[in-house]
Amino acid sequence: MRLNSSFFNKIGKMLDFYSQFNPSPLSIKQFLDFGMNKCESKSYVFLKKELPVRLANIMKEIALLPDNLLRTPSVGLLSNWYARSFEEVIEFEKTDPTSDNLKRFCMILSHIRDRHADVVQTMAQGIMELKDSQNIEPGMETSIQYFLDRFYMSRISIRMLINQHTLLFGEGSEHAKHIGCIEIDCDPKIVVKDAYENARWLCDQYYYGAPEIVVKEHNELERGEPINIVYVPSHLYHILFEIFKNAMRAVMETHQERGDIPPIQVIIVKGNEDICVKVSDQGGGIPRSSADQLFKYMYSTAPHPSKSDVHTVPLAGFGYGLPISRLYARYFHGDISLMSCDGYGTDAIIYMKRLSDEANELLPIFNKTSSRFYNKSTVSAGDWSNQSSLDMLNQWKLIREGN
Amino acid sequence: MRLNSSFFNKIGKMLDFYSQFNPSPLSIKQFLDFGMNKCESKSYVFLKKELPVRLANIMKEIALLPDNLLRTPSVGLLSNWYARSFEEVIEFEKTDPTSDNLKRFCMILSHIRDRHADVVQTMAQGIMELKDSQNIEPGMETSIQYFLDRFYMSRISIRMLINQHTLLFGEGSEHAKHIGCIEIDCDPKIVVKDAYENARWLCDQYYYGAPEIVVKEHNELERGEPINIVYVPSHLYHILFEIFKNAMRAVMETHQERGDIPPIQVIIVKGNEDICVKVSDQGGGIPRSSADQLFKYMYSTAPHPSKSDVHTVPLAGFGYGLPISRLYARYFHGDISLMSCDGYGTDAIIYMKRLSDEANELLPIFNKTSSRFYNKSTVSAGDWSNQSSLDMLNQWKLIREGN
Repeated sequence: MRLNSSFFNKIGKMLDFYSQFNPSPLSIKQFLDFGMNKCESKSYVFLKKELPVRLANIMKEIALLPDNLLRTPSVGLLSNWYARSFEEVIEFEKTDPTSDNLKRFCMILSHIRDRHADVVQTMAQGIMELKDSQNIEPGMETSIQYFLDRFYMSRISIRMLINQHTLLFGEGSEHAKHIGCIEIDCDPKIVVKDAYENARWLCDQYYYGAPEIVVKEHNELERGEPINIVYVPSHLYHILFEIFKNAMRAVMETHQERGDIPPIQVIIVKGNEDICVKVSDQGGGIPRSSADQLFKYMYSTAPHPSKSDVHTVPLAGFGYGLPISRLYARYFHGDISLMSCDGYGTDAIIYMKRLSDEANELLPIFNKTSSRFYNKSTVSAGDWSNQSSLDMLNQWKLIREGN
Repeated sequence: MRLNSSFFNKIGKMLDFYSQFNPSPLSIKQFLDFGMNKCESKSYVFLKKELPVRLANIMKEIALLPDNLLRTPSVGLLSNWYARSFEEVIEFEKTDPTSDNLKRFCMILSHIRDRHADVVQTMAQGIMELKDSQNIEPGMETSIQYFLDRFYMSRISIRMLINQHTLLFGEGSEHAKHIGCIEIDCDPKIVVKDAYENARWLCDQYYYGAPEIVVKEHNELERGEPINIVYVPSHLYHILFEIFKNAMRAVMETHQERGDIPPIQVIIVKGNEDICVKVSDQGGGIPRSSADQLFKYMYSTAPHPSKSDVHTVPLAGFGYGLPISRLYARYFHGDISLMSCDGYGTDAIIYMKRLSDEANELLPIFNKTSSRFYNKSTVSAGDWSNQSSLDMLNQWKLIREGN
């Protein structure tokens, strides 16, 4: 890690200690129950251990990154943020939940959140710096993909813990029907409309038009009843906004000249296990040869990321939209799936667990299994035939020469 | 392998020799061009080497299966079939394409095809025998899944080679617009209708009703023109029949009592890379918790397989329908994708390469990479958090006891 050695020695032992613990995942129901009881001391006692555990786990993985990525200025900066934040939280290690300590803790958490505000762009910048140095070994792309999913998921989870504590116990107004950032009866239809309207506004700016939307609901469990879910609306918004931007861009690119703009179809379904939001467009689809790249970080086609919020970049974004949206969906054991017909259009489904006690955080754990991923430098021979010209040449040779 | 030792010694060396070669994948275009030139000697010369190569490659993998599967009577029987077929083809090794040899070769190929007619059910029987012995170690399911995909793919490819040769050069009538089993201008709409009608007939027998079908086409490349593909119609039929059976069963199970049976929607799309057939049903969907099992062989829910053709078993089939359909799709570098909304319905897309020179056979290769799969016996610790009750207990303990 990019730290001067005295700093490192000081926190090095504490990192070793806290990284031995596995992070403890909470479910939405647990967040909810906890928020309703509103006991600041209990939250303090839990977080002053859990935050260092989560920080230490991910800092151990940062340390395993390839050297030429660790040495980029951006990753150096980022490592310093994590080290300072870790140090600030462990100061509370042996303290009691006095009124002063509670107040100080809440303030420290806010500062930590502010310090880490640009983490996504900064890490992306580090990846850019690595690509520019053209120093990428085989297998490195896989390790970096593995790392970034875990690093960004860790960040989502740490921000969730911090947000819950500061929203419940910090200064600020209470939001009716919200427990921190969780809404008890979130109506996906409303989040769909918000995300659609904002994506539509961007689309209009650029294309002077936008596809309409048709929204249906299907409640399989309680016929005809509206559909609600206990969820974090900002997460669902983030995902839908990304999907609508992609869908609208595809539809306008393929239909703008033809004039007849097919609407985007949305259906919200309440099933036994999941509540799904399916978004279907007729934007020409994604060829199978590109489908692998959709959720990749390293070879996104977008230009260098800017520091501005994703809401203000043009529809193309800076390329991390889908992989990070999928992390948001997976965070509470949901998911995103995409399926496309080349030449026609794409369906995207956002899955969310219907029951809040099954909606558990999905957290990366630092252990032997994860460490092994960072050592993969060799690429094995394929165990299925490929389409190389060498194979084709060989078989024609066999046929023609009669061998 | 289940062979007496003198037999083994005799062919053992030949197996070692031929398994050193990688199978040579052909594209549909190459099959086509070759079939149009109709030179029986060239086919003979190619196949008398290529068939032993493909047989030897898969026989080497059979030999790596866990003992308790190898020792089942069914797998013993199957191994004998392969050994005899291998021996019969290598007799032609140093021979010339005389009229007599060509005739004998064609007959031998037909006998081999007959000998192997029940391979799928026989291997499935072996798996059943293994499950009944309750002798399944951790990691074995993964090896068996890996093996069966490759074993059945190898079989599809060997049958393709044999069928092409015997249809082109054996006795029997020529099929207009067919080169062996390849149709030059296959109309997917017709195959869809055939598969639908036959699945519908089965559905009517069992449920006294069946969903209607609505078929659309979308030709992105040549607006308004019909869609054709150079393909093996029996493969497409096999896949569609399976998908329609599943869709109809799901729709009838969820709607039979309600009376209002929603139709199955099909769209056939011609894109730049692929020709797709998308089948959408409102049959209540597949929960995510079951989605992993769809393409698995070992824990299919169907009862013991019968020897009869899949066309005559009830709609539930014997459980191998989807994984084997996917192999057919992948055989020429296509695919099948399924995506479902729990409580609503499922979309299935069959992908086929649009250009026949990109539709290459996908063949398993026996090498170090594949061998390694059969040695995997340990299960590593997870690198993401899970939902075990132990985790939950731990975190509540942390919160409650204020540790």
